[in-house]
Amino acid sequence: MQVGDATIGGSELAIIAGPCAIESRDQAFAVAKAVQQSGARFFRGGVWKPRTSPYAFQGLGEKGWEIMTEIRKAFGLKIVTEALEESHVGLIERYGDVIQIGARSMQNFSLLRRAGRSQLPVLLKRGMAATLEEWLLAAEYIMAEGNYNVILCERGVRTFTQHTRNTLDLASVPAIRRISHLPVIVDPSHGTGSAYMVTPLARAGVAVGADGLMVEVHDHPELALSDGAQALTPSDYAQLMREVRAIRDVTAPIANESQVQTKVA
Amino acid sequence: MQVGDATIGGSELAIIAGPCAIESRDQAFAVAKAVQQSGARFFRGGVWKPRTSPYAFQGLGEKGWEIMTEIRKAFGLKIVTEALEESHVGLIERYGDVIQIGARSMQNFSLLRRAGRSQLPVLLKRGMAATLEEWLLAAEYIMAEGNYNVILCERGVRTFTQHTRNTLDLASVPAIRRISHLPVIVDPSHGTGSAYMVTPLARAGVAVGADGLMVEVHDHPELALSDGAQALTPSDYAQLMREVRAIRDVTAPIANESQVQTKVA
Amino acid sequence: MQVGDATIGGSELAIIAGPCAIESRDQAFAVAKAVQQSGARFFRGGVWKPRTSPYAFQGLGEKGWEIMTEIRKAFGLKIVTEALEESHVGLIERYGDVIQIGARSMQNFSLLRRAGRSQLPVLLKRGMAATLEEWLLAAEYIMAEGNYNVILCERGVRTFTQHTRNTLDLASVPAIRRISHLPVIVDPSHGTGSAYMVTPLARAGVAVGADGLMVEVHDHPELALSDGAQALTPSDYAQLMREVRAIRDVTAPIANESQVQTKVA
Amino acid sequence: MQVGDATIGGSELAIIAGPCAIESRDQAFAVAKAVQQSGARFFRGGVWKPRTSPYAFQGLGEKGWEIMTEIRKAFGLKIVTEALEESHVGLIERYGDVIQIGARSMQNFSLLRRAGRSQLPVLLKRGMAATLEEWLLAAEYIMAEGNYNVILCERGVRTFTQHTRNTLDLASVPAIRRISHLPVIVDPSHGTGSAYMVTPLARAGVAVGADGLMVEVHDHPELALSDGAQALTPSDYAQLMREVRAIRDVTAPIANESQVQTKVA
Repeated sequence: MQVGDATIGGSELAIIAGPCAIESRDQAFAVAKAVQQSGARFFRGGVWKPRTSPYAFQGLGEKGWEIMTEIRKAFGLKIVTEALEESHVGLIERYGDVIQIGARSMQNFSLLRRAGRSQLPVLLKRGMAATLEEWLLAAEYIMAEGNYNVILCERGVRTFTQHTRNTLDLASVPAIRRISHLPVIVDPSHGTGSAYMVTPLARAGVAVGADGLMVEVHDHPELALSDGAQALTPSDYAQLMREVRAIRDVTAPIANESQVQTKVA
Repeated sequence: MQVGDATIGGSELAIIAGPCAIESRDQAFAVAKAVQQSGARFFRGGVWKPRTSPYAFQGLGEKGWEIMTEIRKAFGLKIVTEALEESHVGLIERYGDVIQIGARSMQNFSLLRRAGRSQLPVLLKRGMAATLEEWLLAAEYIMAEGNYNVILCERGVRTFTQHTRNTLDLASVPAIRRISHLPVIVDPSHGTGSAYMVTPLARAGVAVGADGLMVEVHDHPELALSDGAQALTPSDYAQLMREVRAIRDVTAPIANESQVQTKVA
Repeated sequence: MQVGDATIGGSELAIIAGPCAIESRDQAFAVAKAVQQSGARFFRGGVWKPRTSPYAFQGLGEKGWEIMTEIRKAFGLKIVTEALEESHVGLIERYGDVIQIGARSMQNFSLLRRAGRSQLPVLLKRGMAATLEEWLLAAEYIMAEGNYNVILCERGVRTFTQHTRNTLDLASVPAIRRISHLPVIVDPSHGTGSAYMVTPLARAGVAVGADGLMVEVHDHPELALSDGAQALTPSDYAQLMREVRAIRDVTAPIANESQVQTKVA
Repeated sequence: MQVGDATIGGSELAIIAGPCAIESRDQAFAVAKAVQQSGARFFRGGVWKPRTSPYAFQGLGEKGWEIMTEIRKAFGLKIVTEALEESHVGLIERYGDVIQIGARSMQNFSLLRRAGRSQLPVLLKRGMAATLEEWLLAAEYIMAEGNYNVILCERGVRTFTQHTRNTLDLASVPAIRRISHLPVIVDPSHGTGSAYMVTPLARAGVAVGADGLMVEVHDHPELALSDGAQALTPSDYAQLMREVRAIRDVTAPIANESQVQTKVA
């Protein structure tokens, strides 16, 4: 899948990195510079934030777009932002590059249909309690409107475990591979909720055969307005990139080979 | 909570009954007549249906409202219908009595805010993987806009079990009672997914102290366009009503008493 | 099923009550007196306790049997105790009346086989993550050895929820009824983990059609050596008994009727 | 941890491979030869099998030990077998090298204590619904008896998902690393239940930092008496070994480094 001059689902690992939310121009620029230097082609950053509590920080809203527009120009990064409602899609079409549909919206059918009428690629996160069938049928809501550029994102499911925020279900990657042509990436940040687990699970995500990663990075995680506990520092992120690239070098030919075998089997 | 001349959360058991979806005038009238005769004050029926697959029956849409309007007039029933998107809320305000927010929309925050700006009561179903905190904070999104008439509806959560569609978590009723003033009802139809379980679980819902029930009834379950497997026939429904009223007679004084004890404790 | 002059699975509600663990002669006698006065026919009390930590109170062991033997004689109660290992079965056969197999042991196959070679009834608790099929096949391990007197006990399963220790899956009662002749009882104490929920869930268990209840009672819950948070006081327990008997009066004819309907359907 | 001349938890990846159950001399020899050639140091094979149904194949029992003894001598492999009951431990001590405690027995406390009185290392599988705390406290039951040679094995937990037999919770590996010195290995065979997923999840297990793998291999998976659907053929297994060794070369220095960082942090 081609997004301008970047690809998702090809031989190159697609890296989407950035802060949970755009908080200020300084924060966004510091992070964007760091992730671009370590080789990300996509910049993530919430302009509108889906928060469990109505009293928590809800994102900068349209003001965030001014910052995003500058970043896009300054660093040549593709902008990935979550649309929470139909009216957001038009703004992402104007200022961004990829429409993200979050886990809580995976079955917001009118939003899926609206994204399906867009020309932009759609990153569809798995719902917290979604089966693969439900996830793929949510993708079908988008494709039924004519937009076939859907990227799936495994971000963990809710289980009884308590050592992580969600349980990252990496088996969904080979399972999806077997029944769908859509690219799949892994989000180890939401999938674990703890910075110290992001690096090992990102490595595992690449080793299991994902087409890319979505990772939260913050220049000062301890000051983040949301999800600071799971954000990597720029230097941890740079180290992570070195590790996953080395694993990708090992698994890329393997992954292609095993895909062929799967198709034959 | 007062809904015209009917109440939810008082001494009377609030019964919301009707088909999963409005399919035709004949079907809707047959069911409405049956549930009214057995004492329901509220008629449920989907006009827009949230379906996992884009290729499944999606509801009659606005045409369904003509049928609903006739039923409201003919039987004096209060109309409860699910709003899937913000534009639906206005139509329910014009033609209906209670706005239902479905499990898949429990964290559709813009929809919650729109319902919060309505004068109508809002029935908020628990999400499939929602903790009580998340459920109550979703209610808070509605109340933060000024609409305090929120009714919670336990409809089961997703677990590993396979003998039911969802696992009805009846412990949520006393747990909510302890930390919130909001009325809670139980939906044994979605909570089990099988008609033969609806009656025993409806009895259990009343025995655990719920303020009411939401039950799916269809005049010909085997022909239903959605959720037929969990719909009661009118005669099973009539029998169910006799049973739960008898249990309510036993538990109503008990429930009040234990609520007092809880408040004191 | 006949246990001396008491029955489980008949028209009478089978009540098994007592402390989590036998802690002392005074404690056991105080609780036994209270539960007998409120009409229990079975006295539960752990002699050996399965504890998550090796450093927690592990039960009085064989010394507990002296106390149990006195209670059995003094109050005419049937003794129900958990066997943790094969050697325990012989001691229960000598001094007790019902062998309990706990949730953690539901697939301890050699223990199941040993219980299957006993003449005593076996109370088989559902495992924390057991499907109905696995639970019934565990019962089959007992019955395959010739002991058909198996009582199933629903005690909740592990899910993502946090407001209870386990999620009591009351739908298992009608589901078991449909595919098995075995009696089923409900344990609202372990099924919730909080005393304030035990009474409403016990009412729900009887309303859903269970053949009985297993309830933890302690004369001083705040001093209990295990599971104090979920133990009822004797007076709460007496009130609970009045409530569930009243519900049973309503549901018993219903339950029988619906069982007949189920068999016909 | 030293097991004869093999190690678990060191710089070398510990590979335990073999069939689910020992079925015959021919089968066991064919598999043992294959796994030894691909570099396994440990041979797994069930002599007694914990089966959900009492009517399924239960293992060869003590006859299996003759075959195991020959394999141990012929190939120099260390023998890993599950003990289902206390009496099995003595036989493993006589003929085997590592005592496996299965997921269903994780809280079989008398079995844990018996293993704790053995000189052999104990491989402790995580229970299907076990939290990390419960798992580590089960290890504590073994260590409290004086046997500190405990190896933890992540093999998936039970969740709502349906595309795998269990959900492999790879985040448990870094989580355990952070709070325990015990080595952890991953079992992608039981963790997925499908042969086509074993290789990608084995790669992920090594990438996440596990000290080794436990993998089911069968010379004719389609004829296996148990778990055939998840067994690799010898040639798939050989390919898997090449892949995980390459990933280990990349992650080993990383793993050590991040362990150090964790200890410091």
